[in-house]
Amino acid sequence: MSERVFDVEPYAISTTRLDDGRMRLIESMTSAGNAHMGMRGNFEEGYSGDSHRGTYIAGVWFPDKTRVGWWKNGYPEYFGKVINATNLIAIDLELDGEPVDLFTGRHEDFALRLDLRNGLLTRSFTYITGTAKVRFEFERFLSIATPELCLQRLRIRALEGSVRVRATPRLDGDVHNLDANYGEQFWSEVARGPAPVPHLSLRTIPNPFGTPQFTVTAGMRADVTGLDPSGVVDAPLQAGLVFSGELAAGETSEILKTTAVVTTRDVEEAAHVDTVSRLLEAAAGTTFDEQLAAHTALWEERWARSQVVIEGDDEAQQGIQFNLFQLFSTYYGEDDRLNIGPKGFTGEKYGGATYWDTEAYLVPLYLSVASPDVTRALLAYRHAQLPQAQHNARQQGLAGALYPMVTFNGIECHNEWEITFEEIHRNGAIAHAIAEYTRYTGDRSYLEGPGIEVLVEISRFWADRVHYSKRAQTYMIHGVTGPNEYENNVNNNWYTNSLAAWVLRYTADVLEALPRERLVAVGVEAPERDAWRAISGGMYLPHDDALGVNVQHDTFLDKDLRPVDTIPADQRPLNQHWSWDRILRSCFIKQADVLQGMYLFESDFTVDELRRNFEFYEPMTVHESSLSASIHAVVAAAIGEREKAIELYRRTARLDLDNYNNDTEDGLHITSMSGAWLAIVQGFAGMRATDAGLSFRPFLPAGWSAFSFTVGYRGRVLEVRVETDRVLLALRDGAPLELVVHDRTVTVDGELVVAHPV
Amino acid sequence: MSERVFDVEPYAISTTRLDDGRMRLIESMTSAGNAHMGMRGNFEEGYSGDSHRGTYIAGVWFPDKTRVGWWKNGYPEYFGKVINATNLIAIDLELDGEPVDLFTGRHEDFALRLDLRNGLLTRSFTYITGTAKVRFEFERFLSIATPELCLQRLRIRALEGSVRVRATPRLDGDVHNLDANYGEQFWSEVARGPAPVPHLSLRTIPNPFGTPQFTVTAGMRADVTGLDPSGVVDAPLQAGLVFSGELAAGETSEILKTTAVVTTRDVEEAAHVDTVSRLLEAAAGTTFDEQLAAHTALWEERWARSQVVIEGDDEAQQGIQFNLFQLFSTYYGEDDRLNIGPKGFTGEKYGGATYWDTEAYLVPLYLSVASPDVTRALLAYRHAQLPQAQHNARQQGLAGALYPMVTFNGIECHNEWEITFEEIHRNGAIAHAIAEYTRYTGDRSYLEGPGIEVLVEISRFWADRVHYSKRAQTYMIHGVTGPNEYENNVNNNWYTNSLAAWVLRYTADVLEALPRERLVAVGVEAPERDAWRAISGGMYLPHDDALGVNVQHDTFLDKDLRPVDTIPADQRPLNQHWSWDRILRSCFIKQADVLQGMYLFESDFTVDELRRNFEFYEPMTVHESSLSASIHAVVAAAIGEREKAIELYRRTARLDLDNYNNDTEDGLHITSMSGAWLAIVQGFAGMRATDAGLSFRPFLPAGWSAFSFTVGYRGRVLEVRVETDRVLLALRDGAPLELVVHDRTVTVDGELVVAHPV
Repeated sequence: MSERVFDVEPYAISTTRLDDGRMRLIESMTSAGNAHMGMRGNFEEGYSGDSHRGTYIAGVWFPDKTRVGWWKNGYPEYFGKVINATNLIAIDLELDGEPVDLFTGRHEDFALRLDLRNGLLTRSFTYITGTAKVRFEFERFLSIATPELCLQRLRIRALEGSVRVRATPRLDGDVHNLDANYGEQFWSEVARGPAPVPHLSLRTIPNPFGTPQFTVTAGMRADVTGLDPSGVVDAPLQAGLVFSGELAAGETSEILKTTAVVTTRDVEEAAHVDTVSRLLEAAAGTTFDEQLAAHTALWEERWARSQVVIEGDDEAQQGIQFNLFQLFSTYYGEDDRLNIGPKGFTGEKYGGATYWDTEAYLVPLYLSVASPDVTRALLAYRHAQLPQAQHNARQQGLAGALYPMVTFNGIECHNEWEITFEEIHRNGAIAHAIAEYTRYTGDRSYLEGPGIEVLVEISRFWADRVHYSKRAQTYMIHGVTGPNEYENNVNNNWYTNSLAAWVLRYTADVLEALPRERLVAVGVEAPERDAWRAISGGMYLPHDDALGVNVQHDTFLDKDLRPVDTIPADQRPLNQHWSWDRILRSCFIKQADVLQGMYLFESDFTVDELRRNFEFYEPMTVHESSLSASIHAVVAAAIGEREKAIELYRRTARLDLDNYNNDTEDGLHITSMSGAWLAIVQGFAGMRATDAGLSFRPFLPAGWSAFSFTVGYRGRVLEVRVETDRVLLALRDGAPLELVVHDRTVTVDGELVVAHPV
Repeated sequence: MSERVFDVEPYAISTTRLDDGRMRLIESMTSAGNAHMGMRGNFEEGYSGDSHRGTYIAGVWFPDKTRVGWWKNGYPEYFGKVINATNLIAIDLELDGEPVDLFTGRHEDFALRLDLRNGLLTRSFTYITGTAKVRFEFERFLSIATPELCLQRLRIRALEGSVRVRATPRLDGDVHNLDANYGEQFWSEVARGPAPVPHLSLRTIPNPFGTPQFTVTAGMRADVTGLDPSGVVDAPLQAGLVFSGELAAGETSEILKTTAVVTTRDVEEAAHVDTVSRLLEAAAGTTFDEQLAAHTALWEERWARSQVVIEGDDEAQQGIQFNLFQLFSTYYGEDDRLNIGPKGFTGEKYGGATYWDTEAYLVPLYLSVASPDVTRALLAYRHAQLPQAQHNARQQGLAGALYPMVTFNGIECHNEWEITFEEIHRNGAIAHAIAEYTRYTGDRSYLEGPGIEVLVEISRFWADRVHYSKRAQTYMIHGVTGPNEYENNVNNNWYTNSLAAWVLRYTADVLEALPRERLVAVGVEAPERDAWRAISGGMYLPHDDALGVNVQHDTFLDKDLRPVDTIPADQRPLNQHWSWDRILRSCFIKQADVLQGMYLFESDFTVDELRRNFEFYEPMTVHESSLSASIHAVVAAAIGEREKAIELYRRTARLDLDNYNNDTEDGLHITSMSGAWLAIVQGFAGMRATDAGLSFRPFLPAGWSAFSFTVGYRGRVLEVRVETDRVLLALRDGAPLELVVHDRTVTVDGELVVAHPV
């Protein structure tokens, strides 16, 4: 792998090579976060080579202008984006008056390591000046025990020669967004100073759209041995402390920098400085190692219900561990005002907002590997934004609610008509997640409470968005973009039509099962419900009888249909080589579309139908979305195409670690981090949670000696270990559980072994 | 008409009312230009109310950033736009130390008038101070005799009281574009000064795209009586002269301001100041009235071969006169590096560049009302840009040449995929204009010379852009936007497919008729030509046999088809009331699409076919493009729907004068200025120029007592006068001409009368 910059080990990424041509890639991969905030793996002392310094605070964003290009009615007023926030980790370093800079300076014994079990980032190197050799050892982590805290430890040791050291732990608010068109700054200083602790309080600049301004305050303390306090940093957008002194050979200085961050999302502005001071004071009572231990213990609790172990394949182990670590670093359900941005805290691309990826790709994972509360927080996020979704529908002149393609606050903030107005299948995914939560947990309280309110408004949207074609005598949905974003503005996308028909039917079913008083409260009368059933039943679902496949959209079969392997290798990925025009007109599919729909409603189809569709579409699919291969892997496994399933799994498992799409320098593909997990658990282990309960149809991929994983299910914690010829099920917590393995109903209570069929 | 701000008179627009809520509209309508430069009808002395001051210099533009929103492969690097240039007309005025300002000051006897025969703009008012009444009379025009010159005369007369007058004729370079996102300025000062003449030399700021920078230099002189020179203006971006003095009641001052403008398009920068000085010196030898007379004489020559006279309907007369005047002010073929922007010199919307409108809507007019050289200059413009058109095709990964949607230099500079990549029918219009020129003039020299080179490259584009559908066994064109821009990304747009098939066939025909040596030089071998014929013959042209109509595109008939009159009146125009999504999905047609194609190839269809298509599409057409109603009017006339033709004519004839689309404040719809002419000449008079010659099938619209028009045709000048029951043809110049009137072949030599059939 030409793009592999880190060594393979199961639970960490590490390297002893500093590739200065790939700093952005290295920074993306060594990102870490604690759901409250996060940052790229930037260097404390700065770096003068090509690099992208990025610090992001959860829920803090700015509504930027979107009135560019050619306006269309219905477009949102602004484009929300995360903004690069105060650099929290800065520790300027000078030796004998010269800055330490790994881009320009001589150094040796470099090592960089991110622990994928607890997010501890360590970095060390020996820096060589004209007269001395000095060893630097950095450690840092963002605490999940106290999410306001960033903890850093730096040891500086003179190995040879004597050296004058100057260290300046500081906070740096002079930051810009990568996508700034005109070098704009989005922050203005509210307060700063060296006392009571060095602090910097920045407020987002005013905006004309009436969205809230945010104030973010960072305060720091520095506990230093071996150097003497020698000043403060107190300049616009800067606050910090200066330490200096002489280190003789063998002497060591230790710098503990503790930074606390609060925002007006949680604490009113007037109390910010007091709050960070108190947080820092409390932190001062514990050591770095104690803080790390408390933090690590909480991570261990997470792993106890989510760990995936792949034996005999460290690359695969590293891949799945990296993915789960990065996902949990981004979101663990503590704050239901937050969601999961496509780049998490690792970059700015896509604005950093909420996408439909959450419901389509992440809900199934969180349902299995974390408390149901985590998923419920994700559902609550959408329910809380129902009024905004109604606003979005009104913007299109339509009834009901349209959940946004991209948002921070529920209001759509993306302005490409073929996405904003047309990629409306997202509205189906929001509904489907409610059904999935209900089916997985068996808990109907969310569905019949807030859930049905969301479903009703989504159904109203669909009922208004269809039209009746007098010529064809069916309901149709024109002008959509399906999951395959390599086609836009198509008519009767099979996926979208299927999902819409399902939502209308499911909502009607749920309404009919509601207690009378709740039904009255929800306020849907029988005629409206009947209309939904009529649309659902009369929906046109394109199908080709001769081919025996569902047809992606009305005119797909008119295209020049040919397999991906007819494309010269040097023209892939298509999105980096072909014009958009050529991509749109080609038959090549960016990401699972018909198969995505059949995956969602798998039980409606025979294995033969699945197979025919897989064999038709998979050869035309280029998987240039990070969200595609995993779904195809699950389907391949379901139809017994094990080798294909493994091949597809490989495309998703180490997407970022191996920089498959050549864009990881922009940040990690956070919302596709569930892909490998889906391929392993739903694919290789064949896990399904249906109304009838949990089932497995496992096999062991070639090259692995075994794999195991832990899932939660209705109060139980279940460990599943798949070996060559058998599967071991162990109930780690909860009451005995009846489930189906290889079509056999078994009851797990303690441990159980089921042989694979021959 | 609530939007009518000018009185109706046949050859002028005038008003005695200053409606300060509609200044932008007034300014647009009183715009004037001389093809070299132009300006909105701004007030010399300034105006502190809402207003848009705009001066534009032909061929001077700036490549602005387009890297906004979501990038797509194939998009151009920059968006070219005209930039607001030095304000040439400024004459600051003070009375007793207070600025004259019609927005805030007391005034009476206001009059504003634009002469539509020679573009003389006159404005007068009496200004009332606390102690005096002062009369101001302004005149100005841009000379077509010396296109570098702007001439202004101002008479100031104290009617009552004595008054201290200060007048400052000056050049003001402190200008901004209306669409500036961040208040950018696009000019930097190169030179300025009071000597040898007050002058200001501005250069466009550097750009990163390698397109040329332009320097524009304006110099002025002022010949003043009744006031004394009292200083100069010499400040950044400003140059001018100051005059002052006391006028007692009955005393008059006259200010003649003459401004000369040159650009680096014509004169190298180092010679600018000398050149403007020489131009001004030469002008000083003639009086304002002499300059005006020379200018007016040239306009009279234009009218002698283009005048349209509508008797008995001054509104109609004013409409057609306004349109022709504004068109000729924008372009009269003197400079084949220029083209006709959609707003001409009257505003900045659409960037001010070249659109396909030129070939589709303006070439037929210029062919008839001006020397063939004017049209040939338009064709030469495209031929000169063939390399850039090849570049544009390569950007899409396609062979041949793709003429741009929007351009200044031939390179596409518009970045909306559904337009840039998909509205490719423009490439057909470029080819069709060559055929039209050849058919009208009978001159094959352009066709067989530069023209065939353009046709071949356009054909190569089409041959690569089609695909062969194995299922349907025909050639198809997927992913286009037809003339009806209320649908995007459709498949097999009948208009586009028809035009592409025609281009391929026509090009093959022309090649086969070429002299051997020319054919060799052009370099198309027989197999390529045969392939074009095969594609042309095998092109899929959607048609519905049951309805007997050509189908706009593949799935048009699946829509909810209904007539425009089912839309509530308060929802029109749709583009101001409906979301883009709703517009796209609706059946409503922005502008002639199938009918546009049948109009182009009228002789291929029977009147019955035309009628069926007209009756099918016209009820669904909202005509929200300024380019639509005129084509429908011509078709309506051709099928004998005279009332409908007149109704449609009315929508186009006074589009700007009555501000039909409620957007004239942004500038005039220059490229639709031919609409009324087409409706009158091709519609009411039924004029056609086919290979067989010229023919007419005239009728007199109800409400008119007669109409007449003059056209040039193959060396003749022909005047046609249509009365209630007869048509009079008069040969004003050239050899006897055989033509067809009401299906009768006649020879015109002198005058001839043909009765209308009963």
